[in-house]
Amino acid sequence: MRQSTALIEIATERQGLKEITASVLRWVEGQGVGEGLLTLFCRHTSCSLLVQENAAPDARSDLERYFATIAPEDPTAYDHDDEGPDDMPAHLRAALTAVQISVPLIGGRLALGTWQGLYLFEHRRRPHRRTIALHLLGE
Amino acid sequence: MRQSTALIEIATERQGLKEITASVLRWVEGQGVGEGLLTLFCRHTSCSLLVQENAAPDARSDLERYFATIAPEDPTAYDHDDEGPDDMPAHLRAALTAVQISVPLIGGRLALGTWQGLYLFEHRRRPHRRTIALHLLGE
Amino acid sequence: MRQSTALIEIATERQGLKEITASVLRWVEGQGVGEGLLTLFCRHTSCSLLVQENAAPDARSDLERYFATIAPEDPTAYDHDDEGPDDMPAHLRAALTAVQISVPLIGGRLALGTWQGLYLFEHRRRPHRRTIALHLLGE
Repeated sequence: MRQSTALIEIATERQGLKEITASVLRWVEGQGVGEGLLTLFCRHTSCSLLVQENAAPDARSDLERYFATIAPEDPTAYDHDDEGPDDMPAHLRAALTAVQISVPLIGGRLALGTWQGLYLFEHRRRPHRRTIALHLLGE
Repeated sequence: MRQSTALIEIATERQGLKEITASVLRWVEGQGVGEGLLTLFCRHTSCSLLVQENAAPDARSDLERYFATIAPEDPTAYDHDDEGPDDMPAHLRAALTAVQISVPLIGGRLALGTWQGLYLFEHRRRPHRRTIALHLLGE
Repeated sequence: MRQSTALIEIATERQGLKEITASVLRWVEGQGVGEGLLTLFCRHTSCSLLVQENAAPDARSDLERYFATIAPEDPTAYDHDDEGPDDMPAHLRAALTAVQISVPLIGGRLALGTWQGLYLFEHRRRPHRRTIALHLLGE
């Protein structure tokens, strides 16, 4: 049994879901592990991780619109606005989704379902460079 | 240290919470591991995982009703309805809960609290066959 | 590769976020692991775990107020009130956040971002003693 770790950088262009499955797979495939467990950890509090539908684009735009509605930008609702009106809603949307996701590796493949992709969910309006910590255990 | 992986199938009969603790324990106990880490990963985007109260049934029905309210069926609210009006709310409820849960194994037992059970949360109205990927690490 | 497990106790004084980063680090540092994966698992269904902003206090009070709003105390909304009006909202807030978080350990340090802290989110009004199960894998 062995392990490896890495930090990967993801550039986000806009608020919303950005698929990172290919970037993650590229690193995993370089590690030569057949069975194991991959962990992704998001090192930020204003973006998050999500496993979601990778086929229909309107499922993703609906999801983005939904999170904009349940944790809205609203200057009257929050005290914390150090970085603008999208600051506090970003923390809330991150709290409602996931900071970390682990996926088993079985038979040399991530055990993602057919319609599942790994997404970075950018909650800030402006482009950011984001860092995801990866840990892979296996043999 | 060693690991094992499996795919288990769960049949859901209806929308709502289905306890899977016994099915998961059955597999774990067959692996002969005393200390370790169990990971469950849900291979779908319209059902999810939840650790919840395993005693009072009304806590579960309240929880089901709550998720039906915060991510409601509403044909006017979503563009994505390829599989019917319960399609998009299913993705939203999955995003708000968990796709993956890891539980330490201590002294030969899963470290679940006294009142905690592992649940598959079916978000579609019709019965489905669901697959959960399991990974167990330990010794 | 080796592993260790522990149960740590956290006393909560009030409803809301309590930072537990220092308590967790104290245990991790005693294990002498440089690279690995730490898992925290919350053994309760009326408190939860959260990685959040550790700098601005108003981000935390905004977050507490937000969860009080989207999963409110409301005697007319829930059947389950065995332990009072804050019982069912506690389960809902726990379902919306996380029961478990895993963080990679890289170069002898948890891979938390600069502004990230580990929090126990107490959802009950009265003080409680809470137990978090820890699992550390590494070398």
